[in-house]
Amino acid sequence: MLLTGITMGCPVGIGPEIILKYFHSYKPDGTFSPVVIGDLEVLRRNALHFNISLRCVHWTPGEIPSPGTVPVYNVGNLPSDILRWGEPNRDTGTAMAKYIEHAVTLARQGKLSGITTCPISKAALQKAGYSYPGHTEMLADLVGENQFTMMLAGDRLRVTLVTIHCGLGAVSANLNTGLVLQRIILTHSSLCSDFNIAKPKIAVAGLNPHAGEDGLFGPEEREIILPAVQQARQCGLDIDGPFPPDTVFLKAISGEYDGVVCMYHDQGLIPFKLLHFRDGVNVTIGLSLVRTSVDHGTAYDIAGQGCATPDSLAAAVEMAAKIAQNRKSYNTNLA
Amino acid sequence: MLLTGITMGCPVGIGPEIILKYFHSYKPDGTFSPVVIGDLEVLRRNALHFNISLRCVHWTPGEIPSPGTVPVYNVGNLPSDILRWGEPNRDTGTAMAKYIEHAVTLARQGKLSGITTCPISKAALQKAGYSYPGHTEMLADLVGENQFTMMLAGDRLRVTLVTIHCGLGAVSANLNTGLVLQRIILTHSSLCSDFNIAKPKIAVAGLNPHAGEDGLFGPEEREIILPAVQQARQCGLDIDGPFPPDTVFLKAISGEYDGVVCMYHDQGLIPFKLLHFRDGVNVTIGLSLVRTSVDHGTAYDIAGQGCATPDSLAAAVEMAAKIAQNRKSYNTNLA
Repeated sequence: MLLTGITMGCPVGIGPEIILKYFHSYKPDGTFSPVVIGDLEVLRRNALHFNISLRCVHWTPGEIPSPGTVPVYNVGNLPSDILRWGEPNRDTGTAMAKYIEHAVTLARQGKLSGITTCPISKAALQKAGYSYPGHTEMLADLVGENQFTMMLAGDRLRVTLVTIHCGLGAVSANLNTGLVLQRIILTHSSLCSDFNIAKPKIAVAGLNPHAGEDGLFGPEEREIILPAVQQARQCGLDIDGPFPPDTVFLKAISGEYDGVVCMYHDQGLIPFKLLHFRDGVNVTIGLSLVRTSVDHGTAYDIAGQGCATPDSLAAAVEMAAKIAQNRKSYNTNLA
Repeated sequence: MLLTGITMGCPVGIGPEIILKYFHSYKPDGTFSPVVIGDLEVLRRNALHFNISLRCVHWTPGEIPSPGTVPVYNVGNLPSDILRWGEPNRDTGTAMAKYIEHAVTLARQGKLSGITTCPISKAALQKAGYSYPGHTEMLADLVGENQFTMMLAGDRLRVTLVTIHCGLGAVSANLNTGLVLQRIILTHSSLCSDFNIAKPKIAVAGLNPHAGEDGLFGPEEREIILPAVQQARQCGLDIDGPFPPDTVFLKAISGEYDGVVCMYHDQGLIPFKLLHFRDGVNVTIGLSLVRTSVDHGTAYDIAGQGCATPDSLAAAVEMAAKIAQNRKSYNTNLA
């Protein structure tokens, strides 16, 4: 049985709420079970607060979760008097980091087949003494690996990004052929092992309008991106581009390509969110650990109000199970 | 009766073909009539070549076009021996410029209510001695106006662009508050007069990921875009932003906004083409002349093959008539 561990994320954000709502609507289909790595008492108090009649119970690794309950691997007990909706502090930062650490340990022991993470506060993480720039870097460090990136995946479109959190004006300076090639290779490997595509076809987007129009609008296509595409092709990858950014996504959703490697944040995120606003999943690719994430933040502005929806969490948990399943088959076939 | 003049565009591109196909499928609804400003003999030869049984007839300004014909305001007669599919030359460049000049003259005389342009070759235009950077600049010069920009319009989304044909790395340097404000005002005015929206709501996109995240990913939102939004608001415009570019289009298509002012080419074109690949129309806003354009090029690679589709032309001709109609009502209401 595949088990996906859901880390509870920030205890004063919407993580506990969406977890409870997810379990409330969860219908087991026999392929996997979700369990929570978090704080049992916080979840129980949330269930009371949101009036969700679900039993939150202790889960012990190795145990088959009881149907109709919220099985929780309990990590610490935060007292209610230090918790206020939307106000993270050092204690919530420490707690949320511990959920992640325990989840990674369980996954590495084979007790979880993958992890889906609820949102954390980077500021609280840093207050608690963790200096990671983000969630993914923390996970990568815990498993001791450094070749990874983010893929945004949905039924119609999958995108990866060469540059992510940098200003638009700094994108060009942050691009280089090695980095583009690394993203292409990570994308290819993930499409094979995580998405069960035997011979993935990848499209690479250009950087400039009309993919530079023969250098008229910039040299990056010819000098940086094309060499990476050519090197990848020489390695046997089925890859085309650089394509004009305004039509490459149409090619992908028509089925011509299994994934699009994008040069910057909004180049990939604009089409992805347009197509997958509710059901998009953020997948960390490249790590030995299976990890998906909800595609929203802690949403402190609405924490405690009861209006958060578990759609993104549901899609992320299902995708983590599916990826774990695909990797198993892939590794079996390789063996 | 509203009359939309379709300029034939490059005689050796797909212009004549899509015009004939458009008239072949055209069903008059009594609201407007299309006429062609081009070369009668070229159209007749194209009709034979593509086996489209339509009569191409002389049209005289002021005359009501005969149903079931292709009414042509004849401008020159290019001999067949100098025309080869996909190979523009100085003569085709001169001819195509003349179609535009005559169309503008007819529109200024009130003989046409608007113009829809088929694609031209910029290189051929320049060979013929016209130094305009593009089609729109030529039109603007002919009407003697200089406040204009392009809007891409469809049922679900309308976008305008602050910078257009420049490399991604040069976008930031090309932005300034005055230019953003000019685009906002042109967008507002067009939504009122051309699209019959009494109180348009406009969203302005940021430049950087997460709209800069309080300056973390770049200063442009605070220093350039926000001041323009504030000035526009002080002028009484209903306008919000700068918004994170990856979610602003979702707001627009949900109906929250009537148009989105975008900072660069692909920021606007990626979502627009995803939503309106077949029926998107390029509208020149700001000019006294009503002008729409097909959203594709001369397509020399497929010229003469018979596989071009008239969908974009049909949408552009209909939108030109609709805009002419809306401007009439708008001006009547103002009077």
